[in-house]
Amino acid sequence: MVSRKPAKLKIIPLGGLGEIGKNITLIEYKEDIIIIDCGMMFPDDEMLGIDVVIPDITYVLKNKDKVRGIILTHGHEDHIGGLPYILKKIKLPLYGTKLTLGLVDSKLKEHGIQGVELNEVKARDTLKIGCFNIEFIKVNHSIPDSVALAIHTPIGTVVHTGDFKVDYTPINDEVIDLHQLAEVGSKGVLVLLCDSTNVERPGYTMSERTVGATFNDIFQKAKDRIIVATFASNVHRIQQIVNSASLVNRKVVVSGRSMVNVMNVAIEDGYLNVPEGMLIDINDMDKYPKEELVIITTGSQGEPMSALARMAHSEHKKIELIPGDLVIISASPIPGNEKTIYGLINQLFQKGANVIYEALADVHVSGHACQEELKLMHTLLKPKYFIPVHGEYRHLRRHAQLAQELGMPKENIFIAENGSVLEFTKNGAGFGTNVPAGNVLVDGLGIGDVGNIVLRDRKHLSEDGLIIVVVTMSKQEGKVISGPDIVSRGFVYVRESEDLMEEAKEVVKNILSECERNNITDWATLKSNMRDGLKDYIYGKIKRNPMILPIIMEV
Amino acid sequence: MVSRKPAKLKIIPLGGLGEIGKNITLIEYKEDIIIIDCGMMFPDDEMLGIDVVIPDITYVLKNKDKVRGIILTHGHEDHIGGLPYILKKIKLPLYGTKLTLGLVDSKLKEHGIQGVELNEVKARDTLKIGCFNIEFIKVNHSIPDSVALAIHTPIGTVVHTGDFKVDYTPINDEVIDLHQLAEVGSKGVLVLLCDSTNVERPGYTMSERTVGATFNDIFQKAKDRIIVATFASNVHRIQQIVNSASLVNRKVVVSGRSMVNVMNVAIEDGYLNVPEGMLIDINDMDKYPKEELVIITTGSQGEPMSALARMAHSEHKKIELIPGDLVIISASPIPGNEKTIYGLINQLFQKGANVIYEALADVHVSGHACQEELKLMHTLLKPKYFIPVHGEYRHLRRHAQLAQELGMPKENIFIAENGSVLEFTKNGAGFGTNVPAGNVLVDGLGIGDVGNIVLRDRKHLSEDGLIIVVVTMSKQEGKVISGPDIVSRGFVYVRESEDLMEEAKEVVKNILSECERNNITDWATLKSNMRDGLKDYIYGKIKRNPMILPIIMEV
Repeated sequence: MVSRKPAKLKIIPLGGLGEIGKNITLIEYKEDIIIIDCGMMFPDDEMLGIDVVIPDITYVLKNKDKVRGIILTHGHEDHIGGLPYILKKIKLPLYGTKLTLGLVDSKLKEHGIQGVELNEVKARDTLKIGCFNIEFIKVNHSIPDSVALAIHTPIGTVVHTGDFKVDYTPINDEVIDLHQLAEVGSKGVLVLLCDSTNVERPGYTMSERTVGATFNDIFQKAKDRIIVATFASNVHRIQQIVNSASLVNRKVVVSGRSMVNVMNVAIEDGYLNVPEGMLIDINDMDKYPKEELVIITTGSQGEPMSALARMAHSEHKKIELIPGDLVIISASPIPGNEKTIYGLINQLFQKGANVIYEALADVHVSGHACQEELKLMHTLLKPKYFIPVHGEYRHLRRHAQLAQELGMPKENIFIAENGSVLEFTKNGAGFGTNVPAGNVLVDGLGIGDVGNIVLRDRKHLSEDGLIIVVVTMSKQEGKVISGPDIVSRGFVYVRESEDLMEEAKEVVKNILSECERNNITDWATLKSNMRDGLKDYIYGKIKRNPMILPIIMEV
Repeated sequence: MVSRKPAKLKIIPLGGLGEIGKNITLIEYKEDIIIIDCGMMFPDDEMLGIDVVIPDITYVLKNKDKVRGIILTHGHEDHIGGLPYILKKIKLPLYGTKLTLGLVDSKLKEHGIQGVELNEVKARDTLKIGCFNIEFIKVNHSIPDSVALAIHTPIGTVVHTGDFKVDYTPINDEVIDLHQLAEVGSKGVLVLLCDSTNVERPGYTMSERTVGATFNDIFQKAKDRIIVATFASNVHRIQQIVNSASLVNRKVVVSGRSMVNVMNVAIEDGYLNVPEGMLIDINDMDKYPKEELVIITTGSQGEPMSALARMAHSEHKKIELIPGDLVIISASPIPGNEKTIYGLINQLFQKGANVIYEALADVHVSGHACQEELKLMHTLLKPKYFIPVHGEYRHLRRHAQLAQELGMPKENIFIAENGSVLEFTKNGAGFGTNVPAGNVLVDGLGIGDVGNIVLRDRKHLSEDGLIIVVVTMSKQEGKVISGPDIVSRGFVYVRESEDLMEEAKEVVKNILSECERNNITDWATLKSNMRDGLKDYIYGKIKRNPMILPIIMEV
């Protein structure tokens, strides 16, 4: 008798584990796969010249006949930014809330992608996709219309929190649906996938509303123009800026492409309420005295091409900083951006502006749950198994510890990585065989054509530059006809190092003569002799290791 | 009648303003100049391939006959790291406390610099150098033996705080000498130069002792090996690690070149007390059970070559991480290092270690004064004029504001920059004409030979790599004899982009043919045609801008 293998529910994170960014998770049962989110990530310092990083979707493409659609939890780039790339390779219906789809729609238009099926859902909706019944659950986050997902599968219920916080006093928004979460928890949850971003922080994340109180305070004292920079997608923050501006009777000007874009979508869809006549065109700004203006803009991470950075460097076409301007940076530095942001702040101060930023006042709160909120989520849902997601390894570890502190047995917690396959049956759970996962690098129009070798070369070039040695040689006699010529870039300031370069040429000449004496006519050997000899000479002289490229031209 | 210009006291900061690093300040009166500190700075992200940054000392060299010596406030790299470079160019006596000179001495030996006069001073000493009478005043900081300076000049008293905090319960150290500061203040201070590092932080910096309490707590609960990473120069921190180890009867092992070096100097000079028999050789480590060991090590900033980073990547020759190891990172990330440190922490966790860092426990305190301590300093000294130092522009601005809040008139506060000349007479003060100042970049053995052009090229190369086009041409006929050959590095993974590279070659061939048809034999034009044509082709194809280097070999 042949024993039938029991059918397995598979949960496969392809991104977002061991990193903050490019979130994407697959849920698979028999002939059905759904994808939760498809984000992008910004390159780290080692990924020189890379524009964005997207997930490796080899497994999705291999199983494309099974894939039923992409379910979106919210409209942040690390959850929707990978969509244009995946949708170019495989046409899939999308499911998400109104604002999320609004942002996706404008993103797809930008990439010239047409014909994608956008299915709008609302919190408390239930959707049947393949064998899965998906409930959408309202959560709070730093963008409106965020949802968690309860996915009812034949093996049990999977809850994915998406990104969330618990905000009892949200702005233009409902409180996270604790009742629905409690209900789902009562009925039994097989496995929880939960946001780990802020797991290191004790206590509760402050309510978004506290920022509004700070704004009110600052706006009421301000005597000059006010410029506020924040994330374009933080519609609640923008609402509070508008509210405070309204309180002190100021007009609002918007600058920055993504800010204009998101505000248009948000106003149109009813997520942002701006009083009639309050929003004025940037070209009409001069008609108002500066103390009656608030400018809402991008650039809170110091991005060099952002509107705020252009203002700081007098490169903005419409807005010039005036001494006395009050600039509010309403954001935290994302790790890695600190130096850039502080550089921008210094520059703004030097232009005569006053700058208020997180170190000086409470002008920002996080959008992610701290420890006590995470405990609430775990307690309401009472999952049997737990997979911490949305975090670097340290966050996942800390989150696993938190679950253990709440009484979950260690063996029911899975710290997974991108490409892990978690398998669940009626009887148990465990790791299966990994599937391909990793970083796909986007550089210009090239997707995945920049790999480790190219990055290693860029790194080498960036540190010590390069030296090119060119020689023209006769094919028949194996003799030098012209050269060696030496060209360098990013190595030394040539005019001040003429001696060094002249001597380097002599070194190569000697190497070539010696090769000729020894009848070395194999050009690979010739090249490697030139490279090694020059490398030793240069390092001995100034302790640098430029890339050395010998080129032989054959005539 | 010719009016004689009144003699001026000049204060000239050559480094440390508008930046955290490479602190150096000149005090000049008539024929005398003294230099306060001479530090280095680590390169920022834009200074690709640079090892360290030192101050421009053109003005010092130009006035070398006047310079009487260098007075050191403490032994941190941003105050003494530039010494080897300045002392190679100009021989000057040094003045500093015992530990400071101990660290300087080992630094000079490393650089092979001999014959420097090291003059040891103690807090409360007074020294006459040229026309200046210099009092040394005990302050607290994250390295022992730190002092502030009261420099009595013919125009008035200049106080330079050096780096300081107020610690009422320091470790193996005396409390900052508030009495002497008060005394100096009573006698009248013309101008104060004061540390601005922590001016954004309200309240007081915690006492170093609080970290000891945390260590005791952690050490008493720890069941496995303990590894603590901190700054080598933070002798008080090391003392507390030793104390906690002693409390739980553990032996201490030291790893990391600078840690071994500083601990040797500190023990020898009596700044660090280690109980007899407690310190064991790293080679004897295996003789002790792991729960009886504490390893003190470097790498708290995630430095890739540090002992801790080598442990994390299994590259340490003597120490292998064991699951269960407890690693304590006893430091804050210096802005810009966050990603590296978190990467190291993730790696340590992945090796099975438990990691405790600032986000999780109070394992670090700052060495710099917060707002209330700064107010105390200003209040005790009651200076007439104020120059905020040791800070980025935002810090200097905030510090100026703090002084104003304490009642100082705005016009008595000078926000200076590197190279500013502050001039003081009996009747007033103001800015004179700037002197040369800036960053001198050290790369390998080269000092100052890497400038903007080289850095711009490195940046360009790092982002999109390069394409080299080589053609051999006949001098007489102006015709192509060999080539074009195309070589690229850091551009695309060539094997996957063969078509692109082949087409690129065709593009160049066409350009060369067209030049031949048009009788263009001027090689500059030929090169620029090749460069422009290839640039347009490549950008059109994949939206990248590699550096393009056309080389013509003449035969």
